[in-house]
Amino acid sequence: MTDETNEEHRKRMVRINEIKDRQLASATKEKGLVIVHTGAGKGKSTAAFGMAIRALGQGMKVGIVQFIKGAIPTGEAEFIKQISATGMPIEMHTMGEGFTWKTQDRERDIATAMKGWDQAVQLMRDPSFDLIVLDELNIATKYDYVPASVVVDELLAKRPMLHVVVTGRNASPELIEIADLVSEMKVIKHPYAHGIQPQRGVEF
Amino acid sequence: MTDETNEEHRKRMVRINEIKDRQLASATKEKGLVIVHTGAGKGKSTAAFGMAIRALGQGMKVGIVQFIKGAIPTGEAEFIKQISATGMPIEMHTMGEGFTWKTQDRERDIATAMKGWDQAVQLMRDPSFDLIVLDELNIATKYDYVPASVVVDELLAKRPMLHVVVTGRNASPELIEIADLVSEMKVIKHPYAHGIQPQRGVEF
Repeated sequence: MTDETNEEHRKRMVRINEIKDRQLASATKEKGLVIVHTGAGKGKSTAAFGMAIRALGQGMKVGIVQFIKGAIPTGEAEFIKQISATGMPIEMHTMGEGFTWKTQDRERDIATAMKGWDQAVQLMRDPSFDLIVLDELNIATKYDYVPASVVVDELLAKRPMLHVVVTGRNASPELIEIADLVSEMKVIKHPYAHGIQPQRGVEF
Repeated sequence: MTDETNEEHRKRMVRINEIKDRQLASATKEKGLVIVHTGAGKGKSTAAFGMAIRALGQGMKVGIVQFIKGAIPTGEAEFIKQISATGMPIEMHTMGEGFTWKTQDRERDIATAMKGWDQAVQLMRDPSFDLIVLDELNIATKYDYVPASVVVDELLAKRPMLHVVVTGRNASPELIEIADLVSEMKVIKHPYAHGIQPQRGVEF
């Protein structure tokens, strides 16, 4: 690569550009997407928050429901509180009580998760929203706190231009089946394994 | 799972909680992390922007250098312009001229990438910053526009508490070797393949 001449490079880039242009020309549909971030690696919720700010930057209205987090204050919750105070069209509902191995009470978890789901349905059916993030919902469906079939039915019935992002490891096969875009975040290296603690501004 | 009694569930969650607490107790180090988001799937840059807002929410100062994007206005750039206008401590430098298959000029690409790298070094050496995002830098090292060894040397010499996030597919093995946290974003499903065009607020 280092020895490639400028002219060889140019020719190769012209060919790549032609391929990319062809791909783009054949992609002509516009639709509200069902997007899933799953896998055991980091970046699932974080990328959903990145999508939220990108949408805000395009003048869209964003709703977020957090299904698991809630017991501990986070940087993202504080940030969203600050920007919504300045009038940005974003609404965040933190419905969780912490991970299920903290509450240790299945019936309470189900009640909490269903309360979150009711909130999610309300946002998805409100025509003023353009993008909805259902953060960690996959954990609630994995434990069957919210049945995966209920989630899939609601997503199939959503407004055509509404974008919905669902995060959490162990996405259900039914959800992956109906999704337009699925990314799996894989762990290649995790600082935990090297004795590094979860740090302010990085993990929370 | 559905038939599990509340008591069986509780016992299992108590065991999981004990394991998690033990992991947390053994993770006692605090340090500035080198974080890499790589792979062909979506969410690499988006998760870096999510990290930026989480850090802002924790009162930290954030710097971003975009190595490839720049020719096209994006939601994230517009959003960051808006929040930095309200006084939030974030600085974004968009140094790119678009993908290398658009410019088709290797010497110009090298000059642009090195200008971006000089900017990145300046931010990383400025003690007021807590988190620096080097967006798509991996593309610049892959084409050897910025040598991977130069990047690694600078990261090894950084201030101990500075967090640096490097994004882009094809992260160099040297970078992965020195990173604390590496996530690979894998494509499971991509809407492009189904004729859906890149959409405002989702892709840009």
